[in-house]
Amino acid sequence: MSDYKAFKVAVLDTVAHVQINRPEKINSMNADFWREITEIFNWADATDGIRAVVLSGAGKHFSSGMDLTVLAGIGSQLGTDPGRNALKLRRKIMGFQESFNAVERCAKPVLAAIHGYCLGGAIDLIAACDLRYSTVDAQFSIKEIDIGMAADVGTLQRMPHLIGDGMLRELAFTGRTFAGEEACSMGLVNRTYADHESLLAGVLKLAREIAAKSPVAIRGTKEMLRYMRDHRIDDGLEYIATWNASMLQSEDLRIAIAAHMSKQRAEFAN
Amino acid sequence: MSDYKAFKVAVLDTVAHVQINRPEKINSMNADFWREITEIFNWADATDGIRAVVLSGAGKHFSSGMDLTVLAGIGSQLGTDPGRNALKLRRKIMGFQESFNAVERCAKPVLAAIHGYCLGGAIDLIAACDLRYSTVDAQFSIKEIDIGMAADVGTLQRMPHLIGDGMLRELAFTGRTFAGEEACSMGLVNRTYADHESLLAGVLKLAREIAAKSPVAIRGTKEMLRYMRDHRIDDGLEYIATWNASMLQSEDLRIAIAAHMSKQRAEFAN
Amino acid sequence: MSDYKAFKVAVLDTVAHVQINRPEKINSMNADFWREITEIFNWADATDGIRAVVLSGAGKHFSSGMDLTVLAGIGSQLGTDPGRNALKLRRKIMGFQESFNAVERCAKPVLAAIHGYCLGGAIDLIAACDLRYSTVDAQFSIKEIDIGMAADVGTLQRMPHLIGDGMLRELAFTGRTFAGEEACSMGLVNRTYADHESLLAGVLKLAREIAAKSPVAIRGTKEMLRYMRDHRIDDGLEYIATWNASMLQSEDLRIAIAAHMSKQRAEFAN
Amino acid sequence: MSDYKAFKVAVLDTVAHVQINRPEKINSMNADFWREITEIFNWADATDGIRAVVLSGAGKHFSSGMDLTVLAGIGSQLGTDPGRNALKLRRKIMGFQESFNAVERCAKPVLAAIHGYCLGGAIDLIAACDLRYSTVDAQFSIKEIDIGMAADVGTLQRMPHLIGDGMLRELAFTGRTFAGEEACSMGLVNRTYADHESLLAGVLKLAREIAAKSPVAIRGTKEMLRYMRDHRIDDGLEYIATWNASMLQSEDLRIAIAAHMSKQRAEFAN
Amino acid sequence: MSDYKAFKVAVLDTVAHVQINRPEKINSMNADFWREITEIFNWADATDGIRAVVLSGAGKHFSSGMDLTVLAGIGSQLGTDPGRNALKLRRKIMGFQESFNAVERCAKPVLAAIHGYCLGGAIDLIAACDLRYSTVDAQFSIKEIDIGMAADVGTLQRMPHLIGDGMLRELAFTGRTFAGEEACSMGLVNRTYADHESLLAGVLKLAREIAAKSPVAIRGTKEMLRYMRDHRIDDGLEYIATWNASMLQSEDLRIAIAAHMSKQRAEFAN
Amino acid sequence: MSDYKAFKVAVLDTVAHVQINRPEKINSMNADFWREITEIFNWADATDGIRAVVLSGAGKHFSSGMDLTVLAGIGSQLGTDPGRNALKLRRKIMGFQESFNAVERCAKPVLAAIHGYCLGGAIDLIAACDLRYSTVDAQFSIKEIDIGMAADVGTLQRMPHLIGDGMLRELAFTGRTFAGEEACSMGLVNRTYADHESLLAGVLKLAREIAAKSPVAIRGTKEMLRYMRDHRIDDGLEYIATWNASMLQSEDLRIAIAAHMSKQRAEFAN
Repeated sequence: MSDYKAFKVAVLDTVAHVQINRPEKINSMNADFWREITEIFNWADATDGIRAVVLSGAGKHFSSGMDLTVLAGIGSQLGTDPGRNALKLRRKIMGFQESFNAVERCAKPVLAAIHGYCLGGAIDLIAACDLRYSTVDAQFSIKEIDIGMAADVGTLQRMPHLIGDGMLRELAFTGRTFAGEEACSMGLVNRTYADHESLLAGVLKLAREIAAKSPVAIRGTKEMLRYMRDHRIDDGLEYIATWNASMLQSEDLRIAIAAHMSKQRAEFAN
Repeated sequence: MSDYKAFKVAVLDTVAHVQINRPEKINSMNADFWREITEIFNWADATDGIRAVVLSGAGKHFSSGMDLTVLAGIGSQLGTDPGRNALKLRRKIMGFQESFNAVERCAKPVLAAIHGYCLGGAIDLIAACDLRYSTVDAQFSIKEIDIGMAADVGTLQRMPHLIGDGMLRELAFTGRTFAGEEACSMGLVNRTYADHESLLAGVLKLAREIAAKSPVAIRGTKEMLRYMRDHRIDDGLEYIATWNASMLQSEDLRIAIAAHMSKQRAEFAN
Repeated sequence: MSDYKAFKVAVLDTVAHVQINRPEKINSMNADFWREITEIFNWADATDGIRAVVLSGAGKHFSSGMDLTVLAGIGSQLGTDPGRNALKLRRKIMGFQESFNAVERCAKPVLAAIHGYCLGGAIDLIAACDLRYSTVDAQFSIKEIDIGMAADVGTLQRMPHLIGDGMLRELAFTGRTFAGEEACSMGLVNRTYADHESLLAGVLKLAREIAAKSPVAIRGTKEMLRYMRDHRIDDGLEYIATWNASMLQSEDLRIAIAAHMSKQRAEFAN
Repeated sequence: MSDYKAFKVAVLDTVAHVQINRPEKINSMNADFWREITEIFNWADATDGIRAVVLSGAGKHFSSGMDLTVLAGIGSQLGTDPGRNALKLRRKIMGFQESFNAVERCAKPVLAAIHGYCLGGAIDLIAACDLRYSTVDAQFSIKEIDIGMAADVGTLQRMPHLIGDGMLRELAFTGRTFAGEEACSMGLVNRTYADHESLLAGVLKLAREIAAKSPVAIRGTKEMLRYMRDHRIDDGLEYIATWNASMLQSEDLRIAIAAHMSKQRAEFAN
Repeated sequence: MSDYKAFKVAVLDTVAHVQINRPEKINSMNADFWREITEIFNWADATDGIRAVVLSGAGKHFSSGMDLTVLAGIGSQLGTDPGRNALKLRRKIMGFQESFNAVERCAKPVLAAIHGYCLGGAIDLIAACDLRYSTVDAQFSIKEIDIGMAADVGTLQRMPHLIGDGMLRELAFTGRTFAGEEACSMGLVNRTYADHESLLAGVLKLAREIAAKSPVAIRGTKEMLRYMRDHRIDDGLEYIATWNASMLQSEDLRIAIAAHMSKQRAEFAN
Repeated sequence: MSDYKAFKVAVLDTVAHVQINRPEKINSMNADFWREITEIFNWADATDGIRAVVLSGAGKHFSSGMDLTVLAGIGSQLGTDPGRNALKLRRKIMGFQESFNAVERCAKPVLAAIHGYCLGGAIDLIAACDLRYSTVDAQFSIKEIDIGMAADVGTLQRMPHLIGDGMLRELAFTGRTFAGEEACSMGLVNRTYADHESLLAGVLKLAREIAAKSPVAIRGTKEMLRYMRDHRIDDGLEYIATWNASMLQSEDLRIAIAAHMSKQRAEFAN
């Protein structure tokens, strides 16, 4: 495992546990964070032995979002021509977006385990994960409105697929804080846990369960669900038919059916 | 009514009750099933006297999904060239998809009444219906993951329109079983009933209620909701304007308004 | 403020309170209504001093929907050629749609405060607003099915973004009435209030809160959420990057961050 | 006919001849132009007696494009906040776009007759017309690149449907001038004429020919071609089927077939 | 080979030659035509031994388009309710469209050889083929405008992919006749031949050449070009990558490369 | 400038001349080629001083396309499970696609200067450039069909935007060779030159001309033309309005207009 400045990465058998590791800064997102998260998820994507990823925060919080010194740094690079400044800013924003796209694109399911603060950019981040679980007392807020900007690294783009449009608008316009239970009832997280410890235990157990499934089937399932966020039903049916045209030739299907018949646990290659 | 091997079809006034009728095989989907379901829903679509359809399972369960002998049969037709095998498999999958597309395309509302097992392919099937109701103790599972494949006849394509993306991913990655109440709270079914008998009675009553509405208005409403699954709001507005340009010239509008004014029940031609 | 026949408009600091004002006709939508609502929301859109809009109904109800004399009037303009009639009807429908598009397009958040009846066209209307709140005993119904037509001014187009497809179909096929609590549990309204008075107080308070945020940030947030109803995630990310390329050069960002640092309340220009 | 400052409009039986009428300013597009062109094409759209429109330029040229004083005027309205300036500019640009959208949206075919200069904004304008014809020596140029901006009122959006992508890029990057013959060979204009007189005579003759066809059939044909610029083939097929569901009930079909059978000229109502 | 009433079908090795065979009626499209063309192209699609299809007309012409008695027959089935008539007409039109969709969907390349008249519905038909060749003196016309209707079985939907938008509008608005050479210069046909005999010989030769290529590669190429008519470039790249993920495992690739290396002619299985 | 194995890169003032530099292998695309082309175009994209790029081939040819040893190398990495092989192949293909996407995404106009062979993958490559010019005797062929595969790195995806669908299908199904003049008449190249020397001189001159324009305006123009390949006209208009909301605040607009007024040559910063 490489050495990371903003993260701690542990591999537990076939599950990678990725921790944001700047607890003294409430895991805020500095330049190291933005660069390393891309590297880590590209690595998880390309490494056959990793079959699921858990993402959490070290210390008392998941993350307080963007480190404001990063914004200040960008501001200091701007010149006097608003046109050229716009080109620079656009490129910068797209760079940040790419970091979270790497999370979404990772072929292995990514489970976020959220406790404490999950603010601003942290909402953008968990929206790019597959599954979200939190403690009952986790604190969520679409904070960007309070620093005078529209969220631009994924919250406004991905959240409409996760929670109802009506509630999302309230949260995005007001920036109000909501806790784990409300997050669960609106569908942002799938389940809440009493505390950080039981949260991590529960999410890691779920990750191991998913990692034991056929990697070919998990890969296809994730790909299809990603695809359907943006495509028509007829396109989706055609795409899965084309995808499964090769995947149904995999030995995993035979192994799974044989195990199913003999009531035994199937073992799949990476 | 034709004789069907895998189904039993009864016409109750203007409502067709379509029952999957292989109770000794837990209503699993064999070759007869896949062929006949297309015929039945094409017939319901084209028959003016049918104004709503109820779909249920005979015996103790709704359906356990794909009959594995069908998969085995396909496997035995494959040769040694992975490319040509892929072309064959793709065509096969698209054939199965067409069977459930016939359910979705049927111009009359289709109400699924679900009890007992509703597994794998059965989830793909109910996702192609308009409305879903179940017993409290019905058992649902996106089972495909456990036979080593990504679901490819509609679940991954249509379910994102029915339940939240976060919970769908959990169910699709784990294949875990969930009961009627959870299905209701996540929006997969609209209401649960205490037992099979009250379920059927309730759903048939609802079907009769829908069948009494203007068929022209029901047809347009179903068409628009189907259309909106895949289109932009501006396209949808233009489409309904074009559609209603002729439908508002129908006598049903006049009949309905007259009945409304005189507080009487409107009677509409088929 | 102009004089309106079907509305009463009050400006409370930076919030416009727009009331449908035909209580003796249950606020039904007559020709004045359809013309004036466009004017009012275009005005709110173009007036910098207005930062949020509250929409409610005067008297005992929000609105009973389309005034049937409007439909009768259209009917009387039709001739004998079904083709030319269709062209006229299509143009008429698109005209009505444009009235509610003006609500949706208004750059300032629009909060609907709903009490009493909210029927037929009134559902189309609230679906074009950003946020919906109601009394516990408000009565909702997708009433169009009962006058023999498919809803054509927005309900079938916008509601799929607000509530689950399954429940929407039940409501659209049956036209059944549902109250505030059920509307809240399905996500149509964000919160219910005990009575009309507390509803209006609550919604106006929320509107003022939103009006105090950076108008540049609110404008961008609303634009993005509108955009995402109809676009892919990658298109949305590119669009917000292009949008924020100029908006992040706004002084609001600096003001907001400075206020945040100094724990003071930010004050933003219109 | 209203009095226009930037245009001269003549009605020749069922054909409207719309002339840009600022020859002393090379028909450049000033504030009057932008406002009046919307009014004129909305009028043509809504007036049953008008069945085709010819658009040309008075004097020696079609048009030299945007009047630079309009740009200067906008510049003078900008303040010091780049964010708020961007919101103002965006609204301005969209206003200009709406003027040419009115040309495109006009339900009657619009034929551009081009002679002399056709520069910058004039290319945006003719791209919104249905048909383009020019003199051999007409001079075309996508001039915007030479005033330091990307064309933003239609050229870059609509030209890809008219000429090949490769040549369009050359013209847009270089702004080089090309004459009628090259415009014809690349498909921008359908035919060239020796001089202004024969051009106008030819285009008016063609317009009268189109105006003699069934207005219902012409309306549907234009609508479909507009629709296909932006939609899939399957969507287009479904849309025309829905459209013709009413239009094939028109008496024009019967009149046309009867005339066809009896080898006589059909006469259609407006 | 089945017996057809409106067609004559011959199999020449791996090429099917499908002839419209109602020369005494200028190969106009009657009820037999619409039913049989679907059967024939479904058969060609499903029959491995057929690798390319040539479509031509028996006698002096390709086809004069829709048989007007078919339209008259539909007219006679209409009742008095314009709404219900519209539902019937819509279904009828979609039925005709399905016949030509079968041509487009056929997995084998379809080459149209056109001589004499190619009018109205015949243009819709050739637009659904892959390749078009004609005699120099073939006569083309988008004739629908002259029977008072917008073309609704494919011309207005598919032609924008074949010829420039500007010329298409002229042809669709005027219905003017154009000959082979103009058809070639606008890209509707790829090449013209001096007479019917040389046309058929040339097209059959080309069909045989295509039939000798790898069927797996031809299938993929046709699928991609069909897909790209309606999809984005990024979607197309993803789709071909998914498609070729299995097809590059085919033995045809190995056979083709080996033949290429040894400068020999490759022989591919069906 | 870095040292490249498969390329030679020269910077001529503000124009980068990128040459494929494996003349002894007919500039076939080996592993070095695929890696370095990404690096080079990312560099050109990010380097302000580069304002246009010319792409050509060293020696007698532009390029013969994919080096077959690359395909062989991939084949040798495949295992026995067709499913896992498919996942590997899909990833590989997408990797190749990314190399040419880097060419398309480069913000500076890319001009291809083509002489000699331009076969297979070389067609995919030039389709990702902005502008194409060739010698009269350049030889083009969509060669993939002859190695038993459907082209999968851009030809089938991007060529439909460059040449007519009918001719493209002929070329893709047959793989026939065509020369510069035919390439020009079908719109694949914009102009032909008598020989390699005049080609390079002409293209470099054009590149310098483009490089002298406002970089802000060129950037926006290229972005819009890329965007319009995949988007609707209304989306395109909204996007350019959002884009120009900042870019019209650039000083380039002022500089260009001032130069225009004073008939002087404008000088723009990078």
